[in-house]
Amino acid sequence: MSPINLAIVGVGKIVRDQHLPSIANNADFKLVATASRHGTVEGIPAFTTIEAMLDAVPEIDAVSLCMPPQYRYEAAYKALQAGKHVFLEKPPGATLSEVADLEALAKAKGVSLFASWHSRYAPAVEAAKAFLDGTTIKSVHVIWKEDVRHWHPNQEWIWQAGGLGVFDPGINALSIVTHILPPLFLTGAVLEFPENRDSPIAADLHFKSGQGLPVRAEFDWRQTGKQSWDIVAETEAGQMVLAEGGSKLSVNGELTFTAPEAEYPSLYRRFAEIVKAGTSDVDLAPLRHVADAFMLGKRKFVEAFHD
Amino acid sequence: MSPINLAIVGVGKIVRDQHLPSIANNADFKLVATASRHGTVEGIPAFTTIEAMLDAVPEIDAVSLCMPPQYRYEAAYKALQAGKHVFLEKPPGATLSEVADLEALAKAKGVSLFASWHSRYAPAVEAAKAFLDGTTIKSVHVIWKEDVRHWHPNQEWIWQAGGLGVFDPGINALSIVTHILPPLFLTGAVLEFPENRDSPIAADLHFKSGQGLPVRAEFDWRQTGKQSWDIVAETEAGQMVLAEGGSKLSVNGELTFTAPEAEYPSLYRRFAEIVKAGTSDVDLAPLRHVADAFMLGKRKFVEAFHD
Repeated sequence: MSPINLAIVGVGKIVRDQHLPSIANNADFKLVATASRHGTVEGIPAFTTIEAMLDAVPEIDAVSLCMPPQYRYEAAYKALQAGKHVFLEKPPGATLSEVADLEALAKAKGVSLFASWHSRYAPAVEAAKAFLDGTTIKSVHVIWKEDVRHWHPNQEWIWQAGGLGVFDPGINALSIVTHILPPLFLTGAVLEFPENRDSPIAADLHFKSGQGLPVRAEFDWRQTGKQSWDIVAETEAGQMVLAEGGSKLSVNGELTFTAPEAEYPSLYRRFAEIVKAGTSDVDLAPLRHVADAFMLGKRKFVEAFHD
Repeated sequence: MSPINLAIVGVGKIVRDQHLPSIANNADFKLVATASRHGTVEGIPAFTTIEAMLDAVPEIDAVSLCMPPQYRYEAAYKALQAGKHVFLEKPPGATLSEVADLEALAKAKGVSLFASWHSRYAPAVEAAKAFLDGTTIKSVHVIWKEDVRHWHPNQEWIWQAGGLGVFDPGINALSIVTHILPPLFLTGAVLEFPENRDSPIAADLHFKSGQGLPVRAEFDWRQTGKQSWDIVAETEAGQMVLAEGGSKLSVNGELTFTAPEAEYPSLYRRFAEIVKAGTSDVDLAPLRHVADAFMLGKRKFVEAFHD
């Protein structure tokens, strides 16, 4: 099979840091075009709109959509209508309804849609899942606390309505949680909004499973000093810690699994796999929990945030 | 087939006004028990908890859950685990995730789950759908404006986080819209919260379909005088107005269809139908739009609301 001719839409930091090296090292893909208002990739034909790109480069087979979620639907709709496979960066859209719509369109057009969740491919996630599947879980505590000024400096879109605020990193935790734990639902939540912003800077979420397993998740963007991206489970086989965003698994304080980080290479392997199989991979559970938190959560106002 | 032995959980105003007369007039059902903290039904064995009721009355085949949505999951889970069919009042839950979970449980247990949307069974809804299916729609405007003091006096739960506020009536409009229009998704929203309440008193929603059909919905709980529950569509065949909560259909100012109101009798006919067929009927689209509105919507604070 010849390589999948791939185009990227929305050339920003995540594309340069992650997508481009992963594509360059994957023989299943050949980057043939980009569309972006500002960004370009050296040596690759560049366009400023997806329409111009799709018109000018008919040999495109698939597109990766990496712009902010508020602008993703239009591009995905056009690409799917044109019969292209689509890779959606996380979160897959600004609303659940639009992603459900895109999923139906991909099916009707006979192409693949991939709603990617990069943190699910963190090195120790599968080892954590295997450990939890082999024991009884008593409680789970998710602590996802980072410094927004360091990780998202001056990213205005992330603070706008629809930008998700602290749920932008928090959804990474939820993408792991929904992969390694039984189905959960929210029973209560408090969302803290800076008085000058439309998106929350912190969230405290309480979930339960049907069987009554309690799961608490704390997301906070005001963390200076040590950053935390940890999932701690109390189990009958002891305390499990999945630390550093899914990178390291420890049980009762002993490191039991780690491996080099390779999330985006794994995502592109998965994308090639579903394109070859003629299927889609769209799991909305992480975004559904975020929507549930906004719907059910109590709003609290906290001091203004300035970058 | 002998009647379905039915129990009701949460005996309040909607049960007395709608459920009881509909059940009394439907030979497919026999009311055999109720569970409610306060309410009872004359001549019917009454319990204060669903657990006590399920233990004491094993012949129960099905339960209707009519308590506020924040408390519905636990009862539904217990009833489904006990192998009972379940009728959920609208909205079917406080979160999307819990309803997805219940749907999976009903399937596993081989029983029927009905997420009911009573407004879909308003008299003129099917006639409106037939009219719209036969023309090209240019735009749609939903105006759902009522006086909360009149319709929900001192209902504290409706103002709490998870109580949905003005989306409690608004979801009725959305249940009609998602039945008679093509799939839509939200592109922008403003939610107005009274400064002393956790739920919105008004919402202005802008939707689009994949084909670009613009749909605007205005929900407001501060309407005194004439109340509005109208859906107005501009079409190539003229202006269609579905008025009074789906009761009356007019085209270009002429009344073309109306019939006596019979929403809850229709719901119980539908529930009997799916129980006999061994299927479920769970359409989450209306609640998904509400969750999307909370996630995507811009929050605006307005003057305090006092009952």
